[in-house]
Amino acid sequence: MSPSPATLPSTPSCQPSPARPIALSMGDPSGIGAETIVRAAAGGQADDALVIGSVAVLRRAAACCGLALPLPIVELDDVADWPDAPPDALRVWQPPGLPAALDALPFGQVHAEAGRAAAVCINAGAQLALAGRARALVTAPIHKEALAAAGIDFPGHTEMLQAAAGGVPVRMMLANEQLRVVLVTIHLALRRAIDALDVDGIVQTLRISHRAGQAWGLATPRIAVAGLNPHAGEGGLFGDEEQRIIAPAIAAARAEGIDARGPFAPDTVFMRARHAPPAHPGEFDIVVAMTHDHGLIPVKYLGVEDGVNVTLGLPFVRTSPDHGTAFDIAGSGRADPSSLQAALRMARRMAPAAV
Amino acid sequence: MSPSPATLPSTPSCQPSPARPIALSMGDPSGIGAETIVRAAAGGQADDALVIGSVAVLRRAAACCGLALPLPIVELDDVADWPDAPPDALRVWQPPGLPAALDALPFGQVHAEAGRAAAVCINAGAQLALAGRARALVTAPIHKEALAAAGIDFPGHTEMLQAAAGGVPVRMMLANEQLRVVLVTIHLALRRAIDALDVDGIVQTLRISHRAGQAWGLATPRIAVAGLNPHAGEGGLFGDEEQRIIAPAIAAARAEGIDARGPFAPDTVFMRARHAPPAHPGEFDIVVAMTHDHGLIPVKYLGVEDGVNVTLGLPFVRTSPDHGTAFDIAGSGRADPSSLQAALRMARRMAPAAV
Repeated sequence: MSPSPATLPSTPSCQPSPARPIALSMGDPSGIGAETIVRAAAGGQADDALVIGSVAVLRRAAACCGLALPLPIVELDDVADWPDAPPDALRVWQPPGLPAALDALPFGQVHAEAGRAAAVCINAGAQLALAGRARALVTAPIHKEALAAAGIDFPGHTEMLQAAAGGVPVRMMLANEQLRVVLVTIHLALRRAIDALDVDGIVQTLRISHRAGQAWGLATPRIAVAGLNPHAGEGGLFGDEEQRIIAPAIAAARAEGIDARGPFAPDTVFMRARHAPPAHPGEFDIVVAMTHDHGLIPVKYLGVEDGVNVTLGLPFVRTSPDHGTAFDIAGSGRADPSSLQAALRMARRMAPAAV
Repeated sequence: MSPSPATLPSTPSCQPSPARPIALSMGDPSGIGAETIVRAAAGGQADDALVIGSVAVLRRAAACCGLALPLPIVELDDVADWPDAPPDALRVWQPPGLPAALDALPFGQVHAEAGRAAAVCINAGAQLALAGRARALVTAPIHKEALAAAGIDFPGHTEMLQAAAGGVPVRMMLANEQLRVVLVTIHLALRRAIDALDVDGIVQTLRISHRAGQAWGLATPRIAVAGLNPHAGEGGLFGDEEQRIIAPAIAAARAEGIDARGPFAPDTVFMRARHAPPAHPGEFDIVVAMTHDHGLIPVKYLGVEDGVNVTLGLPFVRTSPDHGTAFDIAGSGRADPSSLQAALRMARRMAPAAV
């Protein structure tokens, strides 16, 4: 379903569309990525997507899901052909350098060729987004070990995209219907994460969060900053990072017009931000968390089905589902497209078609 | 409402009851404790309680709540009179040393006399529980600063009760309908909490958790152990505490017959343990968390109304509501008794009347 019938034709049409597509990279061919894509498309949830991937892999996924007939899969020779292809078909572009015969790879196994294919699609998507030819990039899941097997020296999407964009500072946001969390630190030992906290990094996080909130339509997003220590340090009794680092960062951000508040006790700030109206309207639009797990524990607590991972700070909108390649069920046709659909909705919201 | 009509008479009666009461300490007289007690009692949720506190404060609370008529408040001269007093009345015992004129203290303010009164009631309740004259102790909230103003050198209930019980090792559990979390460390700066982790402390936590699970009727409670670091250390890449400390502790506990598992990634273990049947039955009965906020963020995420704080390791059952004195609404009659009722239910479950 298109978010805006005014900008994306919902009838089969050969008229050029004024909108740019959402680039949607296929992910690891041995995982559930392609299955989630075809299931989302069959449900009318990917009409505005340009899939970057292998037509054969997507056809195999459709067969796994029992969706061969109702979902035409159309190969585009060129990205420029996207507006002219029927929007009720899954429009797929095979980027240069994509390995062949990917549909012969077994499901559920790490394979260098699969890692290479995933990386080719991500980079092609990033180039389209950077060039303004795609309005956003949504990425289906990849497998870290497959990337490594292909000799690709990035632990994941975020780092690849950051490099593609010239090394800009980025932050990871996890969001679902109730909560949006932006992380100051991510994949570090907890001790090292504490050492890594500084005023600049937190101010940078607040700036990036503020801009992201504006991108989804909030003039002045209400940003709560979680403390690091129990009770946010209890006035210095349980740690001084709040006083030395976090409070000064909040003050600096506020001086720039950012509505940052806190530091709040970590154990209740996520509860306070949880947006479940009408009974429980959230007090904040975004919570900034100091550590990976302070932020991700609450956002995942009710399930990861609707979770979306958003890379903030890139010069384009990038979202992804909040799950991995699920090798254990790949090929079974049982993959749940909810999180991918949520990622597509978030991309639409943050990158309006008309922009 | 009594949990077991067979052991606690539900009809007004002068027949002696075979059951021992649940001692219920009044909390800080300037906070919402007494209001939650009278509201729970008026709803028939405290028939098996012996309130330790001031009759005048409880009458004032009933008046605040508009409950003067339907709730008889009976003063017991002696704890031994409890079974003979009518169970549809709130049965109150004023312990020796309780300050007078507590109902003259203003609501919502720190007062030494209030702190002293709260401590007297707690200690009297602990003595009853230690002597086996109460089957459990449930404590209404106290105020740390009021305790300090009274010259009482304990930051809270847990430490007072631990001292009353001779300094036994205790652990804090937070529980609600969906999740039970036991904490290895509590009120320490996060850096110091990491430094404080050791094999013995975690094994001790697992033993205490195991016994607690058995106390509420599980032969072999399924205990998940959350890691400390992102992804539980990702095989040592993001920290080695899982390998050096947590995994050996789990192995040691398993060798004692404790069903401890993990260490699991902190960001998903609480989601996995969340018990919301039938759609989401929990995979574990208890989660052991290394830090205050890893454990309390998920248990508080959906609200603290039904949360119960349980001190594990004491020679008696002790529970309390998971909220404070709420000075901002004390005296308004608006205090929500849900958490106190949940604390009473948990106490009944962990300390059956017949024991």
